[in-house]
Amino acid sequence: VMSEHKQYTIAVIPGDGIGKEVTPWAQQALEKAAADVAEFNYVPFDLGAERYLRDGEILPDEDLEAIKKTDAILLGAVGDPRVKAGVLERGLLLKLRFALDQYVNLRPSKLYKGVTSPLAEPGDIDFVVVREGTEGLYCGAGGAIRKGTEHEVATEVSINTAYGVERVVRYAFELAMKRHKHVTLVHKKNVLVNAGDMWQRIVDKVGEEYPEVTHDYNHIDAATIYLVNDPQRFDVILTDNLFGDILTDEAGAVVGGVGYSASGCINAIDEYPSMFEPIHGSAPDIAGKGIANPTAAILSAAMLLRHLGFDDAAARIDAAVEADIAELGSTQRSTDEVGRDILARI
Amino acid sequence: VMSEHKQYTIAVIPGDGIGKEVTPWAQQALEKAAADVAEFNYVPFDLGAERYLRDGEILPDEDLEAIKKTDAILLGAVGDPRVKAGVLERGLLLKLRFALDQYVNLRPSKLYKGVTSPLAEPGDIDFVVVREGTEGLYCGAGGAIRKGTEHEVATEVSINTAYGVERVVRYAFELAMKRHKHVTLVHKKNVLVNAGDMWQRIVDKVGEEYPEVTHDYNHIDAATIYLVNDPQRFDVILTDNLFGDILTDEAGAVVGGVGYSASGCINAIDEYPSMFEPIHGSAPDIAGKGIANPTAAILSAAMLLRHLGFDDAAARIDAAVEADIAELGSTQRSTDEVGRDILARI
Ligand SMILES: CC(C)[C@H](C(=O)O)[C@@H](O)C(=O)O
Ligand SMILES: CC(C)[C@H](C(=O)O)[C@@H](O)C(=O)O
Repeated sequence: VMSEHKQYTIAVIPGDGIGKEVTPWAQQALEKAAADVAEFNYVPFDLGAERYLRDGEILPDEDLEAIKKTDAILLGAVGDPRVKAGVLERGLLLKLRFALDQYVNLRPSKLYKGVTSPLAEPGDIDFVVVREGTEGLYCGAGGAIRKGTEHEVATEVSINTAYGVERVVRYAFELAMKRHKHVTLVHKKNVLVNAGDMWQRIVDKVGEEYPEVTHDYNHIDAATIYLVNDPQRFDVILTDNLFGDILTDEAGAVVGGVGYSASGCINAIDEYPSMFEPIHGSAPDIAGKGIANPTAAILSAAMLLRHLGFDDAAARIDAAVEADIAELGSTQRSTDEVGRDILARI
Repeated sequence: VMSEHKQYTIAVIPGDGIGKEVTPWAQQALEKAAADVAEFNYVPFDLGAERYLRDGEILPDEDLEAIKKTDAILLGAVGDPRVKAGVLERGLLLKLRFALDQYVNLRPSKLYKGVTSPLAEPGDIDFVVVREGTEGLYCGAGGAIRKGTEHEVATEVSINTAYGVERVVRYAFELAMKRHKHVTLVHKKNVLVNAGDMWQRIVDKVGEEYPEVTHDYNHIDAATIYLVNDPQRFDVILTDNLFGDILTDEAGAVVGGVGYSASGCINAIDEYPSMFEPIHGSAPDIAGKGIANPTAAILSAAMLLRHLGFDDAAARIDAAVEADIAELGSTQRSTDEVGRDILARI
């Protein structure tokens, strides 16, 4: 029977640790929420520590090429204590972000009703971090000489281009137009004067095209303070790859845990598939216990749907999650219990 | 009359904004606390935005040479909105840290009784950040080509040496021996694999010489989470220049405001004078209003005294500050009121 629905191919990369436990729930949520509007074909990819330890492969070319042909990617988490830090992160996760030119790393932070924030007076927190995803200190530029000797020198190079910065700046202003029309650039331009100055100039230039959007600037160190004592000030936070990594984890803590934070690695011109993942890691300490919270993964499925244009289906997942947290957020539940509870509401 | 006390020359650099308002109180606290053990000669230096705007000078060689001859430096804050970001920070503050080889940037974080932390359940927070002060992304390496065009490329280079890392790692382990014997290395070794790997190897190596000290590792993003939801886990946090900048401001927020956080930029081999400063900035928004809290500056005077070996005098300042905060911490007071109240208790 030919389906009348549009068909999509979704790459599923559960990855490591709790990634494997939460991703099936993201997939089920996707399936259920979009059942009456789209048809998804899932292509699972066996990538991560197990595969690497088994046959030494991290992201073979044929897998990358197959992933490139999909419409979107659901990713769990990458990283395993048995593998040296950096090998899987750079060889798999960052390689995907770079090879698929996912230049916008979109990370909403929202304090859900029913979640206890560690802040005494959290107020109404609702902002989005637009993190650059293909430049900065994540390029892998840098090296070491005289390794292991007392004369070792190790470098890391942050590469920033006007091309790469301008496209993500534009994305942030467009996003602000759909939100509360305020962009905060976060950098460290009083020290990183070359990159910081370029970011600020490009924000000023693009900002002129969006007269309705106000923009201001915070140093990264000051921004970490504001996240704790005045998170309400933020609407769209625009920042580079490393600062975005740091700020979004802190933001996750402030809204009661990275268990509620999803993210999209977005190729905004749709040249390649975009990738959706919880911002939490593989959490080796709780992996295998069946207690990881699948909420962030499920929210990443909503981001995927929104990215493909299925706003209503995405809203159904968001609403289900909101209702679940409001009612049961403070109860101890297993991965499967939370998954089932949310699914039942979609 | 010849004094029987040891004599010290203290360079005083109030700097910009509220730096000028709080530094006199640090100086008075120093004077009073050490009156019966040391004699201080203060040499004021007119450095900062005013001087720069007046005659274009940031840190003339003769000033730097004069500062080198002093025994310690009391600094207020540097930075002014009338001056382009980076000019004073790099030309004055960072130039001092680098020229005086202040490789340990020591930043204690403590939640004082009487201070309201923004955290709901702050618990007993008491850790020290040992931030490297003369390397990393703060070197000023990097540049830009095709500036202002769509083909601009801007770089920032983090330079890390075994020599520079090992000396600060050693300092952290020595400090841990006097505290709770635990060191946490914070880095981002899963991405910054060259520098991160070197830091980890050196920590492992030096750690072997301190079998009583346990050490672990957190990624910078995870560390920002722990600062919010489990700050009690930390004793000595050891990290690089940029991550230390970020973590200590967040830590300041967590303990109720950077108004209570002092720091020492330390040349631990005493080849050059060390420098003591509040970690807050020049705060242009409140400068001139007489409402800046001088507590952090006064605490930096205590750090200076401890550095010169006057532990009892330093403890007198710390005790005065603790008592002041416990009793009056939550009352609205002017700079001078807080200064007078603390002075009265020394
Ligand atoms: C695993 C790591 C490489 C990754 C990053 O630093 O981007 C993670 O922390 C994230 O934020 O997605
Ligand atoms: C003013 C600035 C250059 C400085 C730094 O980044 O080190 C400040 O933030 C600090 O932490 O002392």
